[in-house]
Amino acid sequence: MMALEYGDDIVVIDAGVMFPEDDMPGVDLVIQDISYLLERADRVRGILITHGHEDHTGALPFVLPRLNVPVYAPRLAHGLIEVKLRERRVLSKAELHEIEPDVPITLGAFEVEFFRVCHSIPDAMGLAIRTPAGLVIHSGDFKIDHTPVDNMPTDFARLAEICGEGVLLLMSDSTYAEVPGYTPSERLLDESLDRLIAAAPGRVMVATFASLISRVQQVINAAVAHGRKVAVVGRSMVDNVAMAQKMGYLWAPDGMIRPLAELKNLPPEEVLIITTGSQGEPTSGLVRIAKGEHRDIRVMPEDTIIVSASPIPGNEIVVARTIDNLLRKGAHVLHSGNADVHVHGHASREELKVFVRIVRPQFFVPVHGEYRHLVAHADLARTMGVPEDGVFVLEDGDVLEVSAEGGDIVDRFPCGHTFVSGPHLLDEDSDLLRDRQALSKDGIVVVALAVDPATGLLARDPRLRAHGFVEVADAQEMWVEAVQHLMDGLDRDWLLPDQEDELATKARELLGRFLYQRTRRRPTILPVVVPT
Amino acid sequence: MMALEYGDDIVVIDAGVMFPEDDMPGVDLVIQDISYLLERADRVRGILITHGHEDHTGALPFVLPRLNVPVYAPRLAHGLIEVKLRERRVLSKAELHEIEPDVPITLGAFEVEFFRVCHSIPDAMGLAIRTPAGLVIHSGDFKIDHTPVDNMPTDFARLAEICGEGVLLLMSDSTYAEVPGYTPSERLLDESLDRLIAAAPGRVMVATFASLISRVQQVINAAVAHGRKVAVVGRSMVDNVAMAQKMGYLWAPDGMIRPLAELKNLPPEEVLIITTGSQGEPTSGLVRIAKGEHRDIRVMPEDTIIVSASPIPGNEIVVARTIDNLLRKGAHVLHSGNADVHVHGHASREELKVFVRIVRPQFFVPVHGEYRHLVAHADLARTMGVPEDGVFVLEDGDVLEVSAEGGDIVDRFPCGHTFVSGPHLLDEDSDLLRDRQALSKDGIVVVALAVDPATGLLARDPRLRAHGFVEVADAQEMWVEAVQHLMDGLDRDWLLPDQEDELATKARELLGRFLYQRTRRRPTILPVVVPT
Repeated sequence: MMALEYGDDIVVIDAGVMFPEDDMPGVDLVIQDISYLLERADRVRGILITHGHEDHTGALPFVLPRLNVPVYAPRLAHGLIEVKLRERRVLSKAELHEIEPDVPITLGAFEVEFFRVCHSIPDAMGLAIRTPAGLVIHSGDFKIDHTPVDNMPTDFARLAEICGEGVLLLMSDSTYAEVPGYTPSERLLDESLDRLIAAAPGRVMVATFASLISRVQQVINAAVAHGRKVAVVGRSMVDNVAMAQKMGYLWAPDGMIRPLAELKNLPPEEVLIITTGSQGEPTSGLVRIAKGEHRDIRVMPEDTIIVSASPIPGNEIVVARTIDNLLRKGAHVLHSGNADVHVHGHASREELKVFVRIVRPQFFVPVHGEYRHLVAHADLARTMGVPEDGVFVLEDGDVLEVSAEGGDIVDRFPCGHTFVSGPHLLDEDSDLLRDRQALSKDGIVVVALAVDPATGLLARDPRLRAHGFVEVADAQEMWVEAVQHLMDGLDRDWLLPDQEDELATKARELLGRFLYQRTRRRPTILPVVVPT
Repeated sequence: MMALEYGDDIVVIDAGVMFPEDDMPGVDLVIQDISYLLERADRVRGILITHGHEDHTGALPFVLPRLNVPVYAPRLAHGLIEVKLRERRVLSKAELHEIEPDVPITLGAFEVEFFRVCHSIPDAMGLAIRTPAGLVIHSGDFKIDHTPVDNMPTDFARLAEICGEGVLLLMSDSTYAEVPGYTPSERLLDESLDRLIAAAPGRVMVATFASLISRVQQVINAAVAHGRKVAVVGRSMVDNVAMAQKMGYLWAPDGMIRPLAELKNLPPEEVLIITTGSQGEPTSGLVRIAKGEHRDIRVMPEDTIIVSASPIPGNEIVVARTIDNLLRKGAHVLHSGNADVHVHGHASREELKVFVRIVRPQFFVPVHGEYRHLVAHADLARTMGVPEDGVFVLEDGDVLEVSAEGGDIVDRFPCGHTFVSGPHLLDEDSDLLRDRQALSKDGIVVVALAVDPATGLLARDPRLRAHGFVEVADAQEMWVEAVQHLMDGLDRDWLLPDQEDELATKARELLGRFLYQRTRRRPTILPVVVPT
């Protein structure tokens, strides 16, 4: 998510989600903190969406209820966003516009033209934004595929024509800025999928991203070529395939895609199943199949299973576990580690050079990817002749001011993340997360303190309840001693009506020290004072 | 960990640890369940250690107190095991033997000869075990490095000589069985480290595995060549370097390795720091340096930092975060993603073929690596001519019986994992872990129920305390209603002296349903009954 600001006008580019990391227990999604935009809501003219992936659209259901501005998106992204907003019941109030490539729209001081790029979803766009300060080019997520599956290559002619005006600022996709050479064309997979599916002795299952419509098309093409009928399994894959067919992004002969139940009567060598789970997502089709938990599909030893994706960083272990489970059931498994079954959707270094060369910007800001990718892309831009003082590696909250006269980072405002946790939005420094981490590490011990309100003294022995801490059988004796230790430590204390907190604090300290000495662990201690 | 059994004799090969996965909160280490061996303790003649890595030796401090048998290890591993057992205060009772390569030892029915292989630690060995049923070869962890840094290549001559007797069973390292070609020699890094260190304008820091003594030697050699003094930082690196120097596995000119404090007065281009943290370990040298939390080292913009390792699966994100933090401080960072700074320690497919060809076994069992690596290695062995019914992919607990007449999996006993959690050993199906996972996801709500023992009725309003659940500010009203809901639901209940559990269960159900309706989350509910 980034904002372009001129005078009283702001346009926002993309509104994606990130997925939680290991140290964010109970967090479902991570979105950008949008306080800066909320404070200037009357100046935000719209949100421009470059393509339909979650990491570019997923925050809209959380952003739009708080910042209700028009959203401009290419046709397929528009369809995907509608589905998403309807699911979250925030569609009715949203203002969505479908854009056409090469047809400029005016948003305050900005004239925005979308131009076609290739990526791992159809209808991906870059942005050419004319501003009073000069022309800004944003690459979107892109690769240079001269032979894309949908026959819609990156529109270099239009890009070069636009850039003939002279470009003030280029913002370009850095995800693969450390990868040398060129990213292969999606077309490469036509041959390998065809070969692998031709050789499969029994059923074939292919797992890929539900949004990777062009891959689904390639799989269907191979199925057609080798006389297999296709079943689509997994909610998001079913939804996306249906929508892509309806919108004309996916084509299959009539009767080719069938309900799974109908395929049961066909011989295995005439069956192909397309499903989700290429990232090891716990509730996805492939993962349930691998665990033997899928309602309708059991793995058979003659099955050939193709995982047509590579693990996104952080998913390596769950993907590997899924592959291992499939192998245990005797299937033949082809994946990015042992076969040519996936190509990436982002430009590698030589493609990034082509892009910089065409655009020839005065200023360069690498976008998308981790910090090291931004740094690598910045270095690449410098070697391409962008002046040293024209390259800026920005972090969330940095304010870069550029004009033909010069550019500089002029401000930095606090801009963290917001965590989506069930129905709640949490600040990233919420105590909740720290508390959950502590709970998961060492568990909790509750100490109930019955206090006589008349005397302010303990009315009974404290009661202890542990959960997730140590196994009770290991520790009967320890708990008896812990109670005694609390009694000894608290016996001279009394409680005035307003001193519950002091008593609780004292009990927490006494018990915490005692348990650490005995176990070298620090469970969360939660005292509850109960007046008798 | 695996056991070889003949008649009344058992020998165990290696005793390693695994590291906990994301879904094992509070678990420090994972070891094998050794019930099978404990039940047959009087027959276990010893544990054979192939080399000094944690995943081959790390379980010894937990195994030996329960299964006190002799341990046979090569010289360096022997030294490392001593250090480890001393740390855990179990050295005095252990019986450790240092073995010599090519000198057979007799353990019951087994005659065991260690032979030299190359791996990413010096003194790595394979095993040739003569049994009454035939000769068994175990490769250990190995690669085929004809030019290793310590000039101790894999002893093919001896291996071929031994194998001339005819080999019943080969067990061979499968970790890289999916990787085509040959693993490069460690020697490759001499050139690249030399070039990178020569080109560095300021200080150089190199992070690698503390056990990768040959890499440390290469770094020291480059430091010598370019006039840099070396400081060693990080407890395990300091310990290992000291031990390796003492034992003669590492050589540096006098005065070359200096305390860090002494290097502060040298110009940056004469300084090189070797440290730990190549896997993003939270308390390691490099990670603390990257976070700006190291007591003595601050990153400077002219620093060149070399991460001479590649991330072990599961560590990708923490390693990437460390690299990003170093880049943010302006350092130049070289890592396996952008430079030739690491080679692996395991044999790739072509090397595995060489090994199978030399050994020519009757039976083949792939060992080490994930299940998919075992399957790939099994396939490779079949293509090398090992008969189809002579190849066995085994899982923990499988019992394979082999003799010249034939082989088969004849039994499978339950053999899970044991979790080391602080001072405790837990079964892998322990409730503790499930409880901790639930706590980390949704937190906990404690409900204290004050009950009048005379009447068996609630003496006061229940008290609720939430921790890690929802933010209090979001939910004041909800808590008031929750208390009322509990009162309404419990008001007709009374408590006989033995009915505390029933009351607790009822309260848990009432509150659980109420909170799920309100928040769509399921916190752990812990009722505590307090008699007044």
